[in-house]
Amino acid sequence: MADIASTLPLEAASVQQVYDKIRSRVHRTPLLTSKTLDKLASSPRDGETGAPDFNIYFKCENYQRIGAFKARGAFSAVTHLIEVLGLDEALALAASEFGIPAHIVMPSISTPSKIAGTREYTNNVRFSGSTAQERESVVAEVIRETGAVLVPPYDHPDIMLGQGTAALEMLEQYVGEYGKRPDDLKIVLTPCGGGGLLSGTAVFFSDKPTLVVGSEPSYQGADDAMRGLSAKPPKRIETVKTLTIADGLRTPLGVLPFDLFTSDAKSIENVYTVTEDEIKMAMRLVLERMKVFVEPSAVVPLAVVLYNAEFRRWARKQQGGEAWDIAVVLSGGNTTIESIIGLYGTPEGQTA
Amino acid sequence: MADIASTLPLEAASVQQVYDKIRSRVHRTPLLTSKTLDKLASSPRDGETGAPDFNIYFKCENYQRIGAFKARGAFSAVTHLIEVLGLDEALALAASEFGIPAHIVMPSISTPSKIAGTREYTNNVRFSGSTAQERESVVAEVIRETGAVLVPPYDHPDIMLGQGTAALEMLEQYVGEYGKRPDDLKIVLTPCGGGGLLSGTAVFFSDKPTLVVGSEPSYQGADDAMRGLSAKPPKRIETVKTLTIADGLRTPLGVLPFDLFTSDAKSIENVYTVTEDEIKMAMRLVLERMKVFVEPSAVVPLAVVLYNAEFRRWARKQQGGEAWDIAVVLSGGNTTIESIIGLYGTPEGQTA
Repeated sequence: MADIASTLPLEAASVQQVYDKIRSRVHRTPLLTSKTLDKLASSPRDGETGAPDFNIYFKCENYQRIGAFKARGAFSAVTHLIEVLGLDEALALAASEFGIPAHIVMPSISTPSKIAGTREYTNNVRFSGSTAQERESVVAEVIRETGAVLVPPYDHPDIMLGQGTAALEMLEQYVGEYGKRPDDLKIVLTPCGGGGLLSGTAVFFSDKPTLVVGSEPSYQGADDAMRGLSAKPPKRIETVKTLTIADGLRTPLGVLPFDLFTSDAKSIENVYTVTEDEIKMAMRLVLERMKVFVEPSAVVPLAVVLYNAEFRRWARKQQGGEAWDIAVVLSGGNTTIESIIGLYGTPEGQTA
Repeated sequence: MADIASTLPLEAASVQQVYDKIRSRVHRTPLLTSKTLDKLASSPRDGETGAPDFNIYFKCENYQRIGAFKARGAFSAVTHLIEVLGLDEALALAASEFGIPAHIVMPSISTPSKIAGTREYTNNVRFSGSTAQERESVVAEVIRETGAVLVPPYDHPDIMLGQGTAALEMLEQYVGEYGKRPDDLKIVLTPCGGGGLLSGTAVFFSDKPTLVVGSEPSYQGADDAMRGLSAKPPKRIETVKTLTIADGLRTPLGVLPFDLFTSDAKSIENVYTVTEDEIKMAMRLVLERMKVFVEPSAVVPLAVVLYNAEFRRWARKQQGGEAWDIAVVLSGGNTTIESIIGLYGTPEGQTA
């Protein structure tokens, strides 16, 4: 990877520049709405004396190439790499889109579908333990053996700006397809694992009034971003060992996203967390009611909107009776029927 | 329902007239493509010495209102009813879209999700046995008791023309969104249960070169359309008792669709059938690869394209090496996680 100093600054305008470079390579994923989900989100839940009022826009990155928003960051990083190293794009295109041999290091506890999906694109898959330290040691080994250049999954400005293009595209569609004014979009919620998508979204909205909210599972300490950012003083939590069903969000918040969120207090509004059961309930609604096939990680923001009492109380108070347009990013759809059976199909008599 | 004589003729132009009336009430569902599915459909299967070459367009009626194409026929029939009876549309709109009390007769073996979904719109649900005779006797009872007017689920010109609007919209999108010439669309495949969707599609394409193909499950005699139409002379099969997983296709072919297909030999090209396992394989691909949530009935046409040896041989021969654009209608998405677990989740050691 090119030296970090050569990347674009973490500013809204940089997201547009990255988008101009990658837009021909990524899908323009649909921005959908659902009256059923709006109604559910805007009805009081058990224990609520009233409800906030939401019109939800769903940015469907499960329809992105490779089934997740990560194609954006990857194309951003690789495009930049080619620019810096001076490779001719046409030459790079000749072999399988870019023709750069890729070595992938992934935790051995990754879901079978993610492993299988990755292997469709490259044979060079290596496995590591699930902590950041264990992964980095295998990465170091691969670099030593092959001379490869590291493209980290989230902790790099090129990746963060690339993921931010989902937010840019979403706002374009909100205005162009739904005829809304950009400022009418009050909140955008994204999942938060390593923080690439959340920080890219925060950068894109940094010069706009729309608030950005992170969403995490709480299971087995997966809520490291919330805990680390709310500590006094804030302190990045470096190790997370969780088997949350939101398997895309098992990683700790990266250094650069953490720095961004702490150095610019306005970059994100807050991070909210949800339980495993709330993730399952939200996933069922997206599958059965919206007919959109998503993975558990993708619905964590919607679970916050539907079930997080603190978020809902805060929103209701801010709204003062007014209905809000809000957006959630459905980040990916890489799951399988077997995983769904594993999540919901516990036979009677067994423990869930 | 107004007298049948007052309906529009079963001609392509009538589909356009119906569409102009209902377009503000139905969703314009997306027309999607999938490189993964194209590749699978265009690769030789076991026992094939070569393969046909397909670019498949998926008309996603699972994103239609009520989760299925049937909203089209229903709006067509009710709109016509209001016109004939002279009700003022504005008055009708006042109570829940049209304000006409609806009595629904459905087989007691309907899936729980269909029953629950129907009950969301009306409390007047009555159950019958699963044969056409049993259903009709309950319908007669309801009419006797309430004075209601029958809107049959498929066996009526208004319904058939309404379902045909999915085909019209699809061709508009094929031309407008994909920049194709209408004549380049070689085949359209739809599921065939009662035959409303298939006959409406056939009527719409009756003045165009695109061929229309029906798709049925073969399980327990669900292939009644194929059997009845290929008998010499053709004879409509009146009773079907099947528990095919494609639960939307358990009904026998209706009288009017049968009459259309037999009186106009060119109305459909053929009807092909698939096994339960082929339906399950096709459904898995649409869920896991396309990320589109569909019910088993919806993927029967895709299963024909992927697995029916006779269809593939015929297409390959007709193509003579040329790639064909073809379309399949994903007719609906009304299923549940529990149904999916029932289909795929047989625990080890039990019989499937």
